[in-house]
Amino acid sequence: MNFSQRLRSIQRKNQSLLCIGLDTDINKLPESLFAYGDPIYEFNRRIIDATRDLVCAYKLNLAFYEATGEHGWYTVHQTLARIPEEIITIGDAKRGDIGNSSAMYAKLLADDYEFAATTVNPYMGEDSVKPFLKNAHQGAFILAVTSNPGARDFQYLKVKGHPLYEQVIRRVKVWNTRKNCGLVVGATRPRELRRIRTLAPEMPLLIPGIGAQGGDLRSAVRFGCDARGEMAVINASRSILYASTGDDFAEAARREAESLRAQINALREKQFGPWAKRRKLSRPG
Amino acid sequence: MNFSQRLRSIQRKNQSLLCIGLDTDINKLPESLFAYGDPIYEFNRRIIDATRDLVCAYKLNLAFYEATGEHGWYTVHQTLARIPEEIITIGDAKRGDIGNSSAMYAKLLADDYEFAATTVNPYMGEDSVKPFLKNAHQGAFILAVTSNPGARDFQYLKVKGHPLYEQVIRRVKVWNTRKNCGLVVGATRPRELRRIRTLAPEMPLLIPGIGAQGGDLRSAVRFGCDARGEMAVINASRSILYASTGDDFAEAARREAESLRAQINALREKQFGPWAKRRKLSRPG
Repeated sequence: MNFSQRLRSIQRKNQSLLCIGLDTDINKLPESLFAYGDPIYEFNRRIIDATRDLVCAYKLNLAFYEATGEHGWYTVHQTLARIPEEIITIGDAKRGDIGNSSAMYAKLLADDYEFAATTVNPYMGEDSVKPFLKNAHQGAFILAVTSNPGARDFQYLKVKGHPLYEQVIRRVKVWNTRKNCGLVVGATRPRELRRIRTLAPEMPLLIPGIGAQGGDLRSAVRFGCDARGEMAVINASRSILYASTGDDFAEAARREAESLRAQINALREKQFGPWAKRRKLSRPG
Repeated sequence: MNFSQRLRSIQRKNQSLLCIGLDTDINKLPESLFAYGDPIYEFNRRIIDATRDLVCAYKLNLAFYEATGEHGWYTVHQTLARIPEEIITIGDAKRGDIGNSSAMYAKLLADDYEFAATTVNPYMGEDSVKPFLKNAHQGAFILAVTSNPGARDFQYLKVKGHPLYEQVIRRVKVWNTRKNCGLVVGATRPRELRRIRTLAPEMPLLIPGIGAQGGDLRSAVRFGCDARGEMAVINASRSILYASTGDDFAEAARREAESLRAQINALREKQFGPWAKRRKLSRPG
């Protein structure tokens, strides 16, 4: 299965467009977890175990793990090992460097850690992105329009009458020979999301910015999905992880994830009808 | 001292624009180093000890360290501890994320590891770059025109008649309130380097791409320097690190670094005259 097919398959199985962002902040963990050798892993483990049937993906923002010091990468490794194989894992790394250096980041994230996908910054162009696309079953979400205020500084600049992010999308479509390219489009950018879905009708879109950042869920579903009501990956982090600050955080996260998935599915069904049956696209590996 | 002053100070002291890129590849180390617990650190240690009077900066491309696994960050820590305080250390990370995530990368690189400077990708705009600029004595080199082939994909696109990288520079000048911004301009881009020096007459320019990538040393010196023949940081990696593949690698690296510094200084003197005396800008800390 190529990356697009993998994503479609788990979305249908779990009937979910929801991605949980495991941006786990050690300063927000319940006291009791500090009895464990790796409190961040213990937190992640319980969140994963409580929500694994409700999501299509988990996204790990590597800034949060690297910031904890040398142990951070081990926590990433342990966390990934806990996630069922068929769920998409996204290494939110936003890397990008000259070819031989990008190849090293890709080796780390795709080969060693086996993330199903990574996020990649396009500024340095083709040879900086290509190493992340070498295996068809692993994908890259390339930054198009980001959810933060600074997005306006460069991404919207007009190039031949069109914003820069459209030039990015134009190139990404050329690089997408293995059907494993996706785009990052902030949920805080509904107009751009709509436009981008017309430019890239089938591409997976990673849509962060729901919840704490104030993104619009209705537009994320309506404009983020492909014609079959799939391929939008709608990420929420803080609103789920910290739904409760007490020892019941995992149950609270499950309730919050269930509620968000239900909201998404209600919006989705109105627009696109019921979920399709999952086709077995290949034998389980 | 702000970052610009720190750079000027060490350039005058060591009479050098040379930066050595410690892009240490475990596959290229002499056999004998594998008797050490951390062969990469042992290699770096000997390179640093052999060249520390010849350079203004060492640059560590973090892709190379992260690719070695969880131990990589410890190697970074040990390597940095070996570099004399007044030499500029550059964390070549090319990071950039939404504000709170960039703040975590900045905490890691600037606060915990105490890199004097980091490289930053501008695509996500102001709030993604600002966390790297919070301390005046620590700098950020923002990607403008990179040395790789993919640079042409987006960096040269015309925005209101000027290439995108000029828009980046325009914004960076606004962000430079603490005199700690720099720019990355590939040595493979002599025309752009010349233009950029006129746009940002005093800003530190990190110039990679000499040696293996085929960049032009003459232009790097002539166009990369400010009016006083300073503030160009000319990086070479592979040509110095692997000048010999045998156990004499450190002596060979020194010879190569001496030769490159002499070439640079000859070009520099012709254009700008002899090195200025170093002013003590503040008491040693």
